[in-house]
Amino acid sequence: MSRVLSRGRLPEPADFEAQPDPRLVAGWLEADREARPARVERVRGRFADADVDAYFGVRPENSRYVTGFALRPGEDKVAGNSGWFLIGGDEVVVLADSRYMIQAADEATGCRVFEAYGDLPDRWPELLAGTGARRVAVEAGFVSHGLWQRLAAATPEVELVPVEGWIEADRATKEPAEIERIARACAIADRALAALLLRIKPGVTEAELALDLEWLMRTSGAEALSFEVACLGGAQAALPHGSPREVPIREGEVLLFDFGAQLAGYRSDMTRTLFVGEPAARDVEIYELVARAQRAAIQLIEARLVDGEGVPTGPEVDARARSVIEGDGRWPVFGHGTGHGIGLATHELPTLGKRAAQAPLPSPTVFSVEPGIYLEGETGVRIEDLVAIDAEKGRLEILTHFPRDVLVIGA
Amino acid sequence: MSRVLSRGRLPEPADFEAQPDPRLVAGWLEADREARPARVERVRGRFADADVDAYFGVRPENSRYVTGFALRPGEDKVAGNSGWFLIGGDEVVVLADSRYMIQAADEATGCRVFEAYGDLPDRWPELLAGTGARRVAVEAGFVSHGLWQRLAAATPEVELVPVEGWIEADRATKEPAEIERIARACAIADRALAALLLRIKPGVTEAELALDLEWLMRTSGAEALSFEVACLGGAQAALPHGSPREVPIREGEVLLFDFGAQLAGYRSDMTRTLFVGEPAARDVEIYELVARAQRAAIQLIEARLVDGEGVPTGPEVDARARSVIEGDGRWPVFGHGTGHGIGLATHELPTLGKRAAQAPLPSPTVFSVEPGIYLEGETGVRIEDLVAIDAEKGRLEILTHFPRDVLVIGA
Repeated sequence: MSRVLSRGRLPEPADFEAQPDPRLVAGWLEADREARPARVERVRGRFADADVDAYFGVRPENSRYVTGFALRPGEDKVAGNSGWFLIGGDEVVVLADSRYMIQAADEATGCRVFEAYGDLPDRWPELLAGTGARRVAVEAGFVSHGLWQRLAAATPEVELVPVEGWIEADRATKEPAEIERIARACAIADRALAALLLRIKPGVTEAELALDLEWLMRTSGAEALSFEVACLGGAQAALPHGSPREVPIREGEVLLFDFGAQLAGYRSDMTRTLFVGEPAARDVEIYELVARAQRAAIQLIEARLVDGEGVPTGPEVDARARSVIEGDGRWPVFGHGTGHGIGLATHELPTLGKRAAQAPLPSPTVFSVEPGIYLEGETGVRIEDLVAIDAEKGRLEILTHFPRDVLVIGA
Repeated sequence: MSRVLSRGRLPEPADFEAQPDPRLVAGWLEADREARPARVERVRGRFADADVDAYFGVRPENSRYVTGFALRPGEDKVAGNSGWFLIGGDEVVVLADSRYMIQAADEATGCRVFEAYGDLPDRWPELLAGTGARRVAVEAGFVSHGLWQRLAAATPEVELVPVEGWIEADRATKEPAEIERIARACAIADRALAALLLRIKPGVTEAELALDLEWLMRTSGAEALSFEVACLGGAQAALPHGSPREVPIREGEVLLFDFGAQLAGYRSDMTRTLFVGEPAARDVEIYELVARAQRAAIQLIEARLVDGEGVPTGPEVDARARSVIEGDGRWPVFGHGTGHGIGLATHELPTLGKRAAQAPLPSPTVFSVEPGIYLEGETGVRIEDLVAIDAEKGRLEILTHFPRDVLVIGA
């Protein structure tokens, strides 16, 4: 056993909510079923302006959102046409090949299941004939150019209209049952990291710790990871997307974990940078500056919500986090954005970065706030929490509960 | 502990090769490096016929094949442009944003790394200017229609030529170091299932067994799964792509596992249908018929290779497997194909199905042979092995070594 030192109180698994019981999960899926008709209507609400009479989509997250049909992570690569969908004026059709017919009928309640064996272009005229569509909005960001050309050739009398970001914009605004799942996915991740703390000691490899952390989440309620666990020691922590190596962690270095859990379709994302053994004074100074930058960004949002001065824009929040690090002046400012929305996808709208939309953040919504400082070849620090905001209620909640104190472990 | 009965000899983990040592893995990566120039030349060899002077690709498996840049599974969804590549007449360029610059320089040996921050269309003219390309072949099956339109608009003087399947066709023919990895990935899966056998007993849930099997692979050499583990009991086994449920397995029912391991980029895929407790006579008859169908298909290929009568086509092998089940006449023939190629992707060329190419299978290559019989609402049986063929050597090798006997477990 390793001794654990901490400048803050050491978190323990029991500090965080346990995995939800099956009734709670069933309630969320029921809430999705009830919400889907309104989600479909929001898509149809754009038909008149775009002069279309149907919407054809292939993105798995969008399909789950409007039809309920859910593929497992990565399954879209082997699912063929299954899960693709067509929203017409008065029905929603979901495609499934023979492998997925039963699942589609179970999950895509209220949708017509259209058996799509073989190549979709062969059956495209029949699919469209059912809706009488003459101009079809198509998810141009996800339909390949090759498929687009074949669909266009299969129905020369129908016009395909490229659209992007319709359902993605809707997904940015979160329903209560979506936010609850993200919060509980955060708790699964919080608990797992707390359970991992005692296993962290010099000599254990990054890859071993990453696998342990994955396992702790997967055996305590995570149906999947939000993405592969990053566990990066020392100079490796300066790589914002490095992979864990078969290399032992070392005393006196930082250890950065970036990870998340998926629960009933919804994801969490958090980063903590820990200290293995007595930290270098410089690394603690960097850590405290990053923590200040994060607090400043969150406080900016909260102040604006509470004062009723209006929800800030993504670039405003991003600028606030950066300004703290720039104002200090000793270290470089992070190259990535300050945060991103999260839900059915790990990265979704809104975007909190320099080039993000100059419009108030959507509400209610959930996003990450994750400033960092990276010294290439030396060290790196990032702190990432998920934040939920509700402008109408004038409320901000930090969903990640794992403490942000300097934690010294494994000494 | 559960008692284990078997009509065949019960397999044990030590029956199968252990995970490869790091030197072997390093040797495979070195073989990849040495093979890449020839892989690039095969792409360039199509330029004249297609009247193009460059090839632009985005598919992660293709990028790894020609550049060496490797994303982790699912990472393409958050990697932005990183890993996209351009093959010009005399150089290969790989794109990376700031997060991936170091990795790209390490892995994509011999390539020029082009920093692609922000939106690619903004930098597309500069990227193309380096090659002087006037007509660019583009992976139309993987580039979205939206991106295609923006690239076309960014360089109106350059013509984009949609191409599909170029590198996929090359990947179907396997180099020795690729086949070795697939074989060793098969051994990781074989060993893991052998280790799982004693944990299978009535009352354990499908989801628990699926997670155990995943863990056995991930802690014994698998860097990832080929796909999420399927563990399906009883009537559930009739769903060719069902997900494991939180439902206990039951005595007297079949238990189907479909799973695979990824090793140094290359994947395995196997299915075994086991019997929990004393099996129903009908289920054993179905099992033996499926096993006969699989043997017949494999023997057809082997006979043709040995006799030098020429490699069979995918539809010929598929018809042979089906004919055994049709000839028996008691049960329905499987709706899916008899097999698929495998390598960097779980499903790749060649295809062994009714609608597959009427051309001899490529050689050397690796593919699955996986007939099945599914009685909806009752039971299902599939047996899947990977097979490597080499026409020049007149040789067929079954890479999956886990026995195909009737195995009765957990009684």
